[in-house]
Amino acid sequence: MSTEQSFPRTTATTVRRHPERAHYDRALAYAILDEGLCCSVGFLSEGRPCVIPMTYARYGDKVVLHGASKSRISEALAAQDSICVAVTLLDAIVFARSAMHHSMNYRSVMVFGKCTVLSEPEEKIEALKCLVEHVAKGRWNRVRTPSTAELRATQVFAIPIDAASVKCRAGGPIEDPSDLMAQCWAGIVPLELTAGEPVSDPMHPPAVEPDASLVEYRRVPSRSANGKARQ
Amino acid sequence: MSTEQSFPRTTATTVRRHPERAHYDRALAYAILDEGLCCSVGFLSEGRPCVIPMTYARYGDKVVLHGASKSRISEALAAQDSICVAVTLLDAIVFARSAMHHSMNYRSVMVFGKCTVLSEPEEKIEALKCLVEHVAKGRWNRVRTPSTAELRATQVFAIPIDAASVKCRAGGPIEDPSDLMAQCWAGIVPLELTAGEPVSDPMHPPAVEPDASLVEYRRVPSRSANGKARQ
Repeated sequence: MSTEQSFPRTTATTVRRHPERAHYDRALAYAILDEGLCCSVGFLSEGRPCVIPMTYARYGDKVVLHGASKSRISEALAAQDSICVAVTLLDAIVFARSAMHHSMNYRSVMVFGKCTVLSEPEEKIEALKCLVEHVAKGRWNRVRTPSTAELRATQVFAIPIDAASVKCRAGGPIEDPSDLMAQCWAGIVPLELTAGEPVSDPMHPPAVEPDASLVEYRRVPSRSANGKARQ
Repeated sequence: MSTEQSFPRTTATTVRRHPERAHYDRALAYAILDEGLCCSVGFLSEGRPCVIPMTYARYGDKVVLHGASKSRISEALAAQDSICVAVTLLDAIVFARSAMHHSMNYRSVMVFGKCTVLSEPEEKIEALKCLVEHVAKGRWNRVRTPSTAELRATQVFAIPIDAASVKCRAGGPIEDPSDLMAQCWAGIVPLELTAGEPVSDPMHPPAVEPDASLVEYRRVPSRSANGKARQ
């Protein structure tokens, strides 16, 4: 990592609500980005905020996105001065003894910035490789790489991970002392995005078996803010 | 459901990229909203799009959100003419024989609208009850309900589910015929947000065991666009 270990704090990135849950640490942001599978991209559509789920990858100190060259989202990403890429990992539901102290444990990153359109074919291919490898490490070398026509039909974007912030919650419920005697269970129910058994393409059954990494597919476990493995 | 079964199509809600994946069906949108746990809320912060993860619930034909009365997000939700609430369920990773045909199976809803601030205490409590019951049915009756001070410190918002659209992808990879002979596995790896064993509050161990619904916690399985259970 060539850039600063902490993000500069700006008005947009400074967390005001629950500031104790905020972090501006690059390594933590990268761990969350590397574990997430899809992001939510916020952009303007006719002047109004619009949120679309997209695949993404971290490409060094940038986030890369891609879209069909002629789509509404690609036009918006290419043109707008600031878009927002948000990644959220849900770690647990927090059950408290009172309704209002219920919560979620999560790790989330927000990145604000202007997209650069990658136009050099080599850089574009490198970014597309990141997108595939982000989903399944080693996959790029097993599949047909993009053709010239496919490259032309695809726009690839990069946003620097500079104006960014991280917000996390971990741990059990925070209770009011007067609620502690309630005859009610309290604690957390852990959550995880888990993968099932691979299902072979029924239209065209493949001649080979899936790699072991797909049979036991899982996202890289990252570390929580305090350095401990997440609950 | 008192309102139309299909959403009116507007410029904002009409899906242009992969229109065959688009739906404007209220029942499908509601099934996705009911299965999701958290949403991504897009709003403007100093004129720029910003995306924040939030809990939500469907409250009849509305989506309800809540926040601390004095937070930036609450101020934005109360003031802005159009925000976007997006819910995405990831169903599978689609592995193709070529890099560019990799994809995701998902079900997603976007709702655009102006938030109404719920100010009547009874309506506010009803919406907060929806938020708790959305996470765990039956929980509201087991916990302490909001105090007057808690209600005052919390702002509750409702958005009508009218300007909405649904986009889904299901099924296996769509291959180029010339790729079919590749010696490469192709198919899907199903994904699901799964819950682990409940962990009791270590700070204040509860006197009672968790309900069976928390021990075997799962989101209601919804149905895919074609009416079949999802893969």
